[in-house]
Amino acid sequence: MQQLEVKLGKRAYPILAGPGLLGSAQLLARHAGAAKLLVVTDDVVGPLWLSRLEQGLIGRPFEACVLPGGEEQKTLGNVAIIIDALVAARLNRDGMVLALGGGVIGDVAGFAAASYQRGIPIVQLPTTLLAMVDSSVGGKTGVNHPGGKNLIGAFHQPSAVIADTDTLSTLPDRQLRAGLTEIVKAALVADAPFFSWLEANVAKLLARESAAVEEAIRRACAIKAAIVVEDEREQGRRALLNLGHTFGHAIEAGSGYGHVLHGEAVAAGLVLAAELSARTGRIADAVVTRVRNVLAAAGLPVDPPRLGRARMLELMAMDKKVKGGEIRLVLLDGIGKAVVTADYPRKALEALLDERTGT
Amino acid sequence: MQQLEVKLGKRAYPILAGPGLLGSAQLLARHAGAAKLLVVTDDVVGPLWLSRLEQGLIGRPFEACVLPGGEEQKTLGNVAIIIDALVAARLNRDGMVLALGGGVIGDVAGFAAASYQRGIPIVQLPTTLLAMVDSSVGGKTGVNHPGGKNLIGAFHQPSAVIADTDTLSTLPDRQLRAGLTEIVKAALVADAPFFSWLEANVAKLLARESAAVEEAIRRACAIKAAIVVEDEREQGRRALLNLGHTFGHAIEAGSGYGHVLHGEAVAAGLVLAAELSARTGRIADAVVTRVRNVLAAAGLPVDPPRLGRARMLELMAMDKKVKGGEIRLVLLDGIGKAVVTADYPRKALEALLDERTGT
Repeated sequence: MQQLEVKLGKRAYPILAGPGLLGSAQLLARHAGAAKLLVVTDDVVGPLWLSRLEQGLIGRPFEACVLPGGEEQKTLGNVAIIIDALVAARLNRDGMVLALGGGVIGDVAGFAAASYQRGIPIVQLPTTLLAMVDSSVGGKTGVNHPGGKNLIGAFHQPSAVIADTDTLSTLPDRQLRAGLTEIVKAALVADAPFFSWLEANVAKLLARESAAVEEAIRRACAIKAAIVVEDEREQGRRALLNLGHTFGHAIEAGSGYGHVLHGEAVAAGLVLAAELSARTGRIADAVVTRVRNVLAAAGLPVDPPRLGRARMLELMAMDKKVKGGEIRLVLLDGIGKAVVTADYPRKALEALLDERTGT
Repeated sequence: MQQLEVKLGKRAYPILAGPGLLGSAQLLARHAGAAKLLVVTDDVVGPLWLSRLEQGLIGRPFEACVLPGGEEQKTLGNVAIIIDALVAARLNRDGMVLALGGGVIGDVAGFAAASYQRGIPIVQLPTTLLAMVDSSVGGKTGVNHPGGKNLIGAFHQPSAVIADTDTLSTLPDRQLRAGLTEIVKAALVADAPFFSWLEANVAKLLARESAAVEEAIRRACAIKAAIVVEDEREQGRRALLNLGHTFGHAIEAGSGYGHVLHGEAVAAGLVLAAELSARTGRIADAVVTRVRNVLAAAGLPVDPPRLGRARMLELMAMDKKVKGGEIRLVLLDGIGKAVVTADYPRKALEALLDERTGT
């Protein structure tokens, strides 16, 4: 089992990753020991893994709230459904939410837990690679709005993240690949040796070799945890983790949620961010090639859909990093060296979008 | 003008109270200086006071979101409407919400501001006595659920509270009286001399004498600000401000939101809390009489509706102070001496509810 601590003082919590964790009564008693529990899951993951979790809870009673699966379920309406379930289960601040599923379940259940009674504890039980390395860690919760991704939400740290890597056995290949995007992103932001390791090991990850997968989860979580500890509420450095996401969120919103996976949209976004970095003299073209190649090797899309420059800019303007009308972007000064900046020629961005997404 | 500071470190903010503040361009430029503004108000306060605020904003553009008035509007649905308006106005984290109205507007707009992009600034512009002395101060935001009051919400401190006491001139008498409840409560919790002052000055407050009103606002806000600074997220001492509210929330929910004003329900709740304190030997009956009398002198109800013991207990069990199934209550050890406790005989509570609300 891999173990990490997110060192956030009074809000510190462990990240545990390894096989068989959902069925570990000892682990769950320690980290999910509340008297009243509501398990939130979806109709894809629930039938596969809820019974394993039930073993781990050894006879402790819990209520379950099962939502439909899919990115298009990341709505305020589903937050209200979870809150109805919390009220029906008569949970108070000494109760606890267990979020069993991918990023959507973690984000929706996280926002419900953040908002119910102004905040009750939540344990994240991620079952997708993306949720294990990214969305379950760091306390960002939220739902989508037709106007943009994650426009409604809260910062609410979990009490623990318990990633049972057995659950990856039922993850579709497309979802596994989408999770690799955030691992590549983490390396690009802050860890050049890890990026080289990924270039060398991407085939093992696609083959789900457990040693490689656990290593990738640990290293990606460590990068994220270190940045979150420095800047919990995204006043500064944490925005680096948004590399590829301003483009990616626009691609997701413009394509209609659910048509393109988050990880797929961000993969194309990472390439666009690298390309703009090269066009503005920050990095060599060879670096762009490395970024493209590792994502392509992971089977991810490296070209954005043809949404058109105007629509892309409109959607990018809803980004939370926008200040005074300026679209601030995360660009690369090299592998492992991301920067948040508005210091790029607007014309370079427009030309890039013209070429890559259509005028 | 009265001025106070809520000393919450990085989240510190001023409370300003006095006549003419909404029209003060200097004050608004200083405390509501964001480039993009969304004013949230209701269809009662908006027609009366939005034009005054517009004078204060001297030509600065703003968007307005006008909700229907009334306690029954304190819903997640209206939070979604405000968020739609924020998206339509293309506000980002450098924008700002101005909440012009009573407690409902402040709480709903506050939760929308807390949740939009995971938190944007809000300035509270309270126009009711209750909002000026209580709900606009301290960062509690939220909406009701059919299962209970304020079950959905967030802690989100405002950037400033600007209370234009001119707005009280259009406040109905019933609403003014309901505001007096929270002033009496503040004194009961922590300030015996202020309670005596209230006994002597309740007639002046009902007559809206401005010197008395401003004095009451300042002293009530000072009590609340001091407690909030000690315990921003209600881990301990802040729960004292809930004196009368476990009973009061049950009365409100049981009566149907909007039928009984919050301040009216809490007035009856304060009397019940005092009565239970007397029955359990914490205070003399003479103290209960003083509590009843000052509330009755303010024209407030001092007897609860006949909801019945079972329904009252059921509704009280949804209170956020419940721990391990025990209803913790705020009781009085004297005027100005409130305590949070589960140390009372359950039978005493049941007998009180039997007598006062019906078996």
